[in-house]
Amino acid sequence: MDPLVIFTPSGKRGRFPAGTPVLSAARQLGVDLDSVCGGRGICSKCQISPAYGEFPKHGVTVAQGALSDWNAVEERYQQKRGLKPGRRLGCQATVQGDIVIDVPPESQVHKQVVRKAAALRAITMDPATRLYYVEVAEPDMHSPTGDLERLKTALADQWDIAVDNLRVDLPVLSKLQPALRKGHWSVTVALHQGHADMHERILDIWPGFYEDRLYGLAIDLGSTTIAAHLCDLRNGEVTASAGIMNPQIRFGEDLMSRVSYAMMNPGGDVEMTRAVREALNALTTDIAAEGRIEPSQIMETVFVCNPVMHHLLLGIDPVELGQAPFALATSGAMSLDARDLDLSAMNPAARVYILPCIAGHVGADCAAVALSEEPYKSEDLVLIVDVGTNAEILLGDKTRVLACSSPTGPAFEGAQISSGQRAAPGAIERVEIDPVTKEPRFKVIGSDLWSTQDGFAAATAVSGITGICGSGIIEAVAEMRAAGLLDASGLIGSAAQAGTARLIPEGRTHAYVLHDGTGEGGPLITVTQGDIRAIQLAKSALYAGARLLMDEIGTDTVDRIVLAGAFGAHISPKHAMILGMIPDAPLNKVSSAGNAAGTGARIALCNRAARAEIEARVRQITKVETAVEPRFQEHFVAASAIPHATAPFAILRGTVELPEPSFNTAGESDGGRRRRRRG
Amino acid sequence: MDPLVIFTPSGKRGRFPAGTPVLSAARQLGVDLDSVCGGRGICSKCQISPAYGEFPKHGVTVAQGALSDWNAVEERYQQKRGLKPGRRLGCQATVQGDIVIDVPPESQVHKQVVRKAAALRAITMDPATRLYYVEVAEPDMHSPTGDLERLKTALADQWDIAVDNLRVDLPVLSKLQPALRKGHWSVTVALHQGHADMHERILDIWPGFYEDRLYGLAIDLGSTTIAAHLCDLRNGEVTASAGIMNPQIRFGEDLMSRVSYAMMNPGGDVEMTRAVREALNALTTDIAAEGRIEPSQIMETVFVCNPVMHHLLLGIDPVELGQAPFALATSGAMSLDARDLDLSAMNPAARVYILPCIAGHVGADCAAVALSEEPYKSEDLVLIVDVGTNAEILLGDKTRVLACSSPTGPAFEGAQISSGQRAAPGAIERVEIDPVTKEPRFKVIGSDLWSTQDGFAAATAVSGITGICGSGIIEAVAEMRAAGLLDASGLIGSAAQAGTARLIPEGRTHAYVLHDGTGEGGPLITVTQGDIRAIQLAKSALYAGARLLMDEIGTDTVDRIVLAGAFGAHISPKHAMILGMIPDAPLNKVSSAGNAAGTGARIALCNRAARAEIEARVRQITKVETAVEPRFQEHFVAASAIPHATAPFAILRGTVELPEPSFNTAGESDGGRRRRRRG
Repeated sequence: MDPLVIFTPSGKRGRFPAGTPVLSAARQLGVDLDSVCGGRGICSKCQISPAYGEFPKHGVTVAQGALSDWNAVEERYQQKRGLKPGRRLGCQATVQGDIVIDVPPESQVHKQVVRKAAALRAITMDPATRLYYVEVAEPDMHSPTGDLERLKTALADQWDIAVDNLRVDLPVLSKLQPALRKGHWSVTVALHQGHADMHERILDIWPGFYEDRLYGLAIDLGSTTIAAHLCDLRNGEVTASAGIMNPQIRFGEDLMSRVSYAMMNPGGDVEMTRAVREALNALTTDIAAEGRIEPSQIMETVFVCNPVMHHLLLGIDPVELGQAPFALATSGAMSLDARDLDLSAMNPAARVYILPCIAGHVGADCAAVALSEEPYKSEDLVLIVDVGTNAEILLGDKTRVLACSSPTGPAFEGAQISSGQRAAPGAIERVEIDPVTKEPRFKVIGSDLWSTQDGFAAATAVSGITGICGSGIIEAVAEMRAAGLLDASGLIGSAAQAGTARLIPEGRTHAYVLHDGTGEGGPLITVTQGDIRAIQLAKSALYAGARLLMDEIGTDTVDRIVLAGAFGAHISPKHAMILGMIPDAPLNKVSSAGNAAGTGARIALCNRAARAEIEARVRQITKVETAVEPRFQEHFVAASAIPHATAPFAILRGTVELPEPSFNTAGESDGGRRRRRRG
Repeated sequence: MDPLVIFTPSGKRGRFPAGTPVLSAARQLGVDLDSVCGGRGICSKCQISPAYGEFPKHGVTVAQGALSDWNAVEERYQQKRGLKPGRRLGCQATVQGDIVIDVPPESQVHKQVVRKAAALRAITMDPATRLYYVEVAEPDMHSPTGDLERLKTALADQWDIAVDNLRVDLPVLSKLQPALRKGHWSVTVALHQGHADMHERILDIWPGFYEDRLYGLAIDLGSTTIAAHLCDLRNGEVTASAGIMNPQIRFGEDLMSRVSYAMMNPGGDVEMTRAVREALNALTTDIAAEGRIEPSQIMETVFVCNPVMHHLLLGIDPVELGQAPFALATSGAMSLDARDLDLSAMNPAARVYILPCIAGHVGADCAAVALSEEPYKSEDLVLIVDVGTNAEILLGDKTRVLACSSPTGPAFEGAQISSGQRAAPGAIERVEIDPVTKEPRFKVIGSDLWSTQDGFAAATAVSGITGICGSGIIEAVAEMRAAGLLDASGLIGSAAQAGTARLIPEGRTHAYVLHDGTGEGGPLITVTQGDIRAIQLAKSALYAGARLLMDEIGTDTVDRIVLAGAFGAHISPKHAMILGMIPDAPLNKVSSAGNAAGTGARIALCNRAARAEIEARVRQITKVETAVEPRFQEHFVAASAIPHATAPFAILRGTVELPEPSFNTAGESDGGRRRRRRG
């Protein structure tokens, strides 16, 4: 009988004639064993670990000699690059007897990449663009075919790739003949295989075996900042991250002011498109330098962004997004060439994928959050809130998912706040106020010390104390409420116990002095009544959006809350709940997803199936338009108060649990709706 | 029973409920009745002619009232544009009783266009790009979808177009929203549907019903000249033609000198690519002006060209085509965007189709000749010769087709001839020499008079008599042979009877004075021994190529000869045969196909199926490489003589038939080959 070959961890097994290369056996059994060179002993991706001894579980005994002897190709690779102890090259080692073979994770094509420390799930690597090494037949003038046609035949024969509709753009075609000759009729191609029914394409070509790796960019194109991750397309590793300001800010701080700029200025949209594309090129150059790669190694880019950023990136006038019915030019996912977007800094043939938009106010960024957090697979009812300049809100479970966007404005990011600033060294980011003395203590970005601790002055000497960032203002307002400096309506100093020298007159109202740096030539940092109102407006908008979706689904409570974006990273869930930014929930049911939109972009970058999935899922999401929904206005008005007047301080310090939810919105009285209650 | 509707000329028939529009009935029966607006009474493409009376053949009697009354839409169209008598609009007239309806040719989508006066077959109109008028649903913010997604739905619903993979490039997408709003939610799109398994694409979009037509360019991109036809894509009509010199001539007269230029000068290929693309843009602008259309109405372009022109057009260094094994970068047909080739003068979204190449020396121009002349469908053995700077030769019948290219050089086009010039006013194009007096008479381009006729001087006063073009030199050499001024080896003045004052010494040989214009300040136009040798080399190369294919197929004779290119248009078959340019055949079996390559380009422009057909046919053509075939050299040497010494004059003047073929080439002795003889 032929030798039995058992692969672990898959457990796949089969009998193969003695002399069969391990790689061939793996392929025949459908075992996930990588190879770029197709078994020619060049790429070393097919490393395996044979196991010897008794395997009662598998019912085999593996004797020495079950694999062929270490050969010259392996010896050469060992000397040149080194192999881990016990490793063999799967394309060189042949089966000689019954054998158990382990495929280590790094030798799997569809390796799983842990997404982040607190990841709920892993990304399976299956990027759209991969390298293939092929040996191409030389031309024969008596049977003349083009070099491209012979390359296609080689790809079909050696890699089983469907080449009938294989596309090769002219810049690559013009490199083909020199590459084939320089590589002595062997080349490595970067092949893009789309997730939908699309053309395969050769994006680039190199003579012989191409040693370097391919990279992708996951870009979260926000109204204010543009953040990018550079990912290794073989293992999903983030090798560099970079962010820059969106230069469109000079045309308007928020989305609607940019739409207005486009409406008021002929060619204004073109100007904004050019600005963001130039910034993306600069970002690409920077991140490639930081990751120590050539920009031409960047072969894939995924964008997530809100609809206005989406249209401006594509070169579409966003004017329709500024007025009802907020019609998108296209809501579908986009697959483009980098050159279509003038993204000349990366490989000009790089493919660009943009996630689908959900609605005129709910963009590809929200789709990316959905892809990352998968509410559509949730067993319990989950509320996902992603705060940027707009808040994207998703609510649902595996039976149904709703989405809306809420115009919170930039207050949560520190803008439109009297002492507000962007999150940067010197900005106050954490605040506590003693309920008895009304004295504050705070932390600034760049130091781990509280302002009351020794060494704080020295630690902040360089940056100074310059203002309050988004998380700082939220904590400050919540702490002021907890310390009795605000009443439930948000008025400063009206409560009897508010008396403190920290409250100073400001116009007809008061301001709370958080830090007085004027003695050292620094700023006087206060929280004014105007700041409180701005935060109230923003949090009401956010809350009203969430509540609107809850009404839609017919529930007063949610099972868990996921905070994403600025929230997850910087804003304390407790303070958010004190403020009434989000519906009440047990604190242990509130989790942070970090930059979920960015994570969604990375997932789409690394896995083709995820693209197809989110395209299908988005079509099933119910969109709720907040802008024209009277109920939204009702919730908005009702939500302006700052609740939890009874025990906010105890909640903040964790000495009591949050009280049971109490809602006083219009939705309450609608008896026709389904009510969900925690058990 | 429902009324019976019979369509002519198709004969298709069916019963439909009273009130069914004629257009709907036609669609259900699969009758070829055109419509751009989808039956909304806008486009008037669906005109039909009802017939009344007794139709024993069809078994019906058609009474007045069998169609609904003339309606307001028809009346408006009648007043605005006019309808031919008896015509109705198929989308307005409804069936009321048994009826016979004629679909006139201009109302058929797949109308047949007579290719040319002497056409063997017609082109069926089925262009890749057509206009579709659609009415698109307005956006609904409560069920938000992109405008593009609703446009796709409309195309699928109203035109049954598969839109899953419909592609819309960004420049068109950016026009979508304004067009929909300006057209009050109706637009006309130019939709490209490829012949292979390709994406459908929207190439352009206009608000409402687009009144203008779409056009295509069929371009024969030759080494020396670039000729273009502007075709109406609805009916295939050529509405303008234009030609310009290929500006690459400044880098080298013939193909190999251009390849050398690319080899010797770094970036030389890029220079030549830029030059030809600029010329194509100029040509496009000119031909659009001549056809009185906007260049943006040009939506399709088809190129035919030899492999070196092909590579330089695409931006591929042609260096590999200059040395064995003459490897093409790609031999397959190409489908591109105009912008890929920097063809910015036409619609930037225009699609470009380039026919496949057959081999390193046998290009898309030869494929176009094959598409036009269809040797692969021929019942008898046909030899097709297309002469430009290179000769493309096809030989075969429905069982097998062979192709080769022969390096004739530019002598047949008047280049490398002492008094040679391009075919232009003032060039001698026809020549006769009296065998007794040895006196010539000739015609020049721009006049129909022989030089011996009254009024010739006046008719040529403006142009002058400036030189000899390709056809002129061929006739001159053949006439000199017939008049005894040349011997069979091509030597001038060796024959006893050659004595005439027209023969003047030139170096160590003689020249024949065709025209002495020196008295009037014009040139002395002679045929020198060098000219004879140039023509001998060229014609030997041509003959040897044809003979090589005949050897390959095992025949000494062909059933018919088709002359294409310069041949068909200008060169007299009789003179060609006297010279021994082509194998002997009865003169009534020699026909001219005119610019067959250009015709092939037009066919591919007008009919998608033709593209698929030629791609498949080309793969089945046997390629013969002349450059390394020893037999070609043998034929070449053997063919240098000018045969038919016995009766050339009688042949020329038509007083005797051509003798039976007599070959004296090496192929004769190969007894193992199949011999074909005329019956």
